[in-house]
Amino acid sequence: MDPDGVARAFVDHYYTTFDTNRAALVGLYQEGSMLTFEGDKYMGAAAITQKLTSLPFAACKHQVTTVDCLPSGPAGGMLVFVSGALQVGEGEHPLKFSQMFHLMPVGPGNFYVQNDMFRLNYG
Amino acid sequence: MDPDGVARAFVDHYYTTFDTNRAALVGLYQEGSMLTFEGDKYMGAAAITQKLTSLPFAACKHQVTTVDCLPSGPAGGMLVFVSGALQVGEGEHPLKFSQMFHLMPVGPGNFYVQNDMFRLNYG
Repeated sequence: MDPDGVARAFVDHYYTTFDTNRAALVGLYQEGSMLTFEGDKYMGAAAITQKLTSLPFAACKHQVTTVDCLPSGPAGGMLVFVSGALQVGEGEHPLKFSQMFHLMPVGPGNFYVQNDMFRLNYG
Repeated sequence: MDPDGVARAFVDHYYTTFDTNRAALVGLYQEGSMLTFEGDKYMGAAAITQKLTSLPFAACKHQVTTVDCLPSGPAGGMLVFVSGALQVGEGEHPLKFSQMFHLMPVGPGNFYVQNDMFRLNYG
């Protein structure tokens, strides 16, 4: 699979997990992983998953609009830059967001999230 | 300066250069630098600067809304995630954008752009 295909497959997997079994995201982070969520910083799979599972909505649905990727960092690393919309309740207006991931390989076609940076796009 | 201060200083310098002397951005990229601009990929300082200086507006003004940063990649590398608005002509409505930079150190407090990923936020 080409890098763009790998990036899209990761993004699909990430948001499907987020939308159906958020606690399982813990498996995508490691101890040294870092998150900025609306400017607040979290480090480590446990703290990151605690933040994501405690967001004030039970059900949500991500719709991805764009996925860009570039190789970066230690060998096999990849930057993935996503824009999309997040619906957090029935009938609610979707919220636009931008998110970037710095992925590191843990095996062929397999990555963990070293860095995750999330922002809602207000306006 | 703390990492957030360094990131803000870089962002201020980058957009001031973009808005006042776009061709001088060439000094912030290197041969291995990569850009995705609205999904199109460019590699190398010359190709990247060629793209940025040929954008179809002469004057522009970036207004930064948020700057997030995290260390990442080879020692001293830093991810910088920006949201803001871009005004491309007198009286035009500003365009919301998101942009991320993967910066690599070239000396104390001095960085080049290894990766640059830019998207307008439509909607």
